[in-house]
Amino acid sequence: MATTTRDVAREAGVSQSTVSRALNGDPRVAPETRALIQAAAKRLSYLPNSAARSLITQRTDTIGILIGEITNPFYPQLVDVLHDEFTLAGFRTVLLNERADAGRADELFPQLQGRFVDGIVIANAMLGATFVDDFHKQGIPVVLLNRDVDDAHVDRVVSDNTGGGEVAATTLVELGHRRIGLIGGPANASTARDRALGFERGLARAGLEVASRRVGEFTHQSGYQWCLELLREPAPPTAIFAANDVIAFGVLDAAKRMGIRVPEDLSVIGYDDIEMAGWELFGLTTVRQPLSQMAKAAARMLIERIEGRVVREPARLVFPANLMRRQTTTYA
Amino acid sequence: MATTTRDVAREAGVSQSTVSRALNGDPRVAPETRALIQAAAKRLSYLPNSAARSLITQRTDTIGILIGEITNPFYPQLVDVLHDEFTLAGFRTVLLNERADAGRADELFPQLQGRFVDGIVIANAMLGATFVDDFHKQGIPVVLLNRDVDDAHVDRVVSDNTGGGEVAATTLVELGHRRIGLIGGPANASTARDRALGFERGLARAGLEVASRRVGEFTHQSGYQWCLELLREPAPPTAIFAANDVIAFGVLDAAKRMGIRVPEDLSVIGYDDIEMAGWELFGLTTVRQPLSQMAKAAARMLIERIEGRVVREPARLVFPANLMRRQTTTYA
Repeated sequence: MATTTRDVAREAGVSQSTVSRALNGDPRVAPETRALIQAAAKRLSYLPNSAARSLITQRTDTIGILIGEITNPFYPQLVDVLHDEFTLAGFRTVLLNERADAGRADELFPQLQGRFVDGIVIANAMLGATFVDDFHKQGIPVVLLNRDVDDAHVDRVVSDNTGGGEVAATTLVELGHRRIGLIGGPANASTARDRALGFERGLARAGLEVASRRVGEFTHQSGYQWCLELLREPAPPTAIFAANDVIAFGVLDAAKRMGIRVPEDLSVIGYDDIEMAGWELFGLTTVRQPLSQMAKAAARMLIERIEGRVVREPARLVFPANLMRRQTTTYA
Repeated sequence: MATTTRDVAREAGVSQSTVSRALNGDPRVAPETRALIQAAAKRLSYLPNSAARSLITQRTDTIGILIGEITNPFYPQLVDVLHDEFTLAGFRTVLLNERADAGRADELFPQLQGRFVDGIVIANAMLGATFVDDFHKQGIPVVLLNRDVDDAHVDRVVSDNTGGGEVAATTLVELGHRRIGLIGGPANASTARDRALGFERGLARAGLEVASRRVGEFTHQSGYQWCLELLREPAPPTAIFAANDVIAFGVLDAAKRMGIRVPEDLSVIGYDDIEMAGWELFGLTTVRQPLSQMAKAAARMLIERIEGRVVREPARLVFPANLMRRQTTTYA
């Protein structure tokens, strides 16, 4: 015989309706009572029937993940962790690979209409993206991951992009570099903005300015083209900070194309520390953000909201960013 | 005043209901009449209202794309082309990143229940995947892209994997290689099976066999680990065929780790010709399948089925695979 909520109620010494409420995340159940019931359910190996639960709770057990530029390996790596974390918690995922600069949620993402998902992870929000609030107002739990939207009233998980940019600057300055270039990301992405800000701040502390600056997409193509330009300047930089790892790969490729040795003639620092950064052929020195931890934290925050286990103000988790030194940096 | 179907009917000289039928892809409308109506609609710049069309047609204007191993850049590249092609035709996409070895469609992909999508592209089907037929039986149009399922009664778009494997063998034999290794993909993927088959056939024609063989996942990790093993054999291969580009990148990394020069000491051929294969640091010689053309063809076949514009037996399109010679191959 399968275990039922009746068995759990008896084991926990509460009524069956209290058990149902607790398992459905009803906030009226006191935390201590909930803990009691969860412990009883666990002792009895109680498994709620998913179809039945869906009927009762109106839940879809599906999470939407909004990502951008899927060909940037950063996003697939986030998705992999999110997928595993949600699967463990009994949720399926659907991914939407759309650029989302401006507009209303229901116009940008009609696929998500009709309460098709229980919650949403947004990894590609641009600054000023009002659609984030739209979801929130519709009562769909949202968590922002990676890219921030200033003053958004939802849970957010980001890395310390300003601090990370500063670390890149300090590292290059300490290696003796003075002509330092920056190849940045799109101005309307919080990550690109904050990394550049921190980088400038770090240089300023040493009395330096960015020697040459270019701004483009978070792509290999952008890093490649802009780096060719920088290297053809009369006094080319001896070091370049790239706003993400994929831009940095483009920089390494441009240097190879021009016959310029890395790190002997050119030091390069990226940002992210995606898996590829550690491949032997790249050996990229980069500012590491703890992607797995960040994605896991975002998934857990969203699940808590969906299951109604927390009633609290939106939180903003900031993870530290540290230098991962490999083979692309050396003394000026 | 917006143009209506009434205007289109008058312009084409047919009844309004015939216009509606034609625009909704009703097969009862003769091809010539349909052409007449389409031309009239085009002359008048007629734009059907998408919400109204959805009500009439019961369509969701959403396509499901099933992919596997999203961290293999091959899939994001396919998705990018599919996304653009479907967007042009007025469809949104949702991606499902799930391993799909065996099982029933409704169990594997509960996110797709309730006619949430108009059609499905499956890029990661394993041999014997019965869920493909499940979708088909439910009346949801399906197209298989990239990986084939033998005898599946649905539209399929693949490259000539056997021919491609043969080209890799012939190329290495003609360069004078005799000790040739193979690092293959999973045995239950049609692509891995057929590439290995063609490769063996090509070697056999020169009186050769595969000198050393390893089989693993389509990952960098697999290529790296197996290549380290092959290179430590008493008589290591002078050339390796990797079943996809990502495996080949792992092979290049392993060679670098061991201090073995590519191509002087080791020739390497991959398969796919994803964008990264052309990056300067890789310069990978590889068997090219025309990914964009394949993805576009798959999208068009699916759209035709959804719009009911074709009533025909399922087709199997096979695209040629050709050698893209770069810097990782040379004479033995």
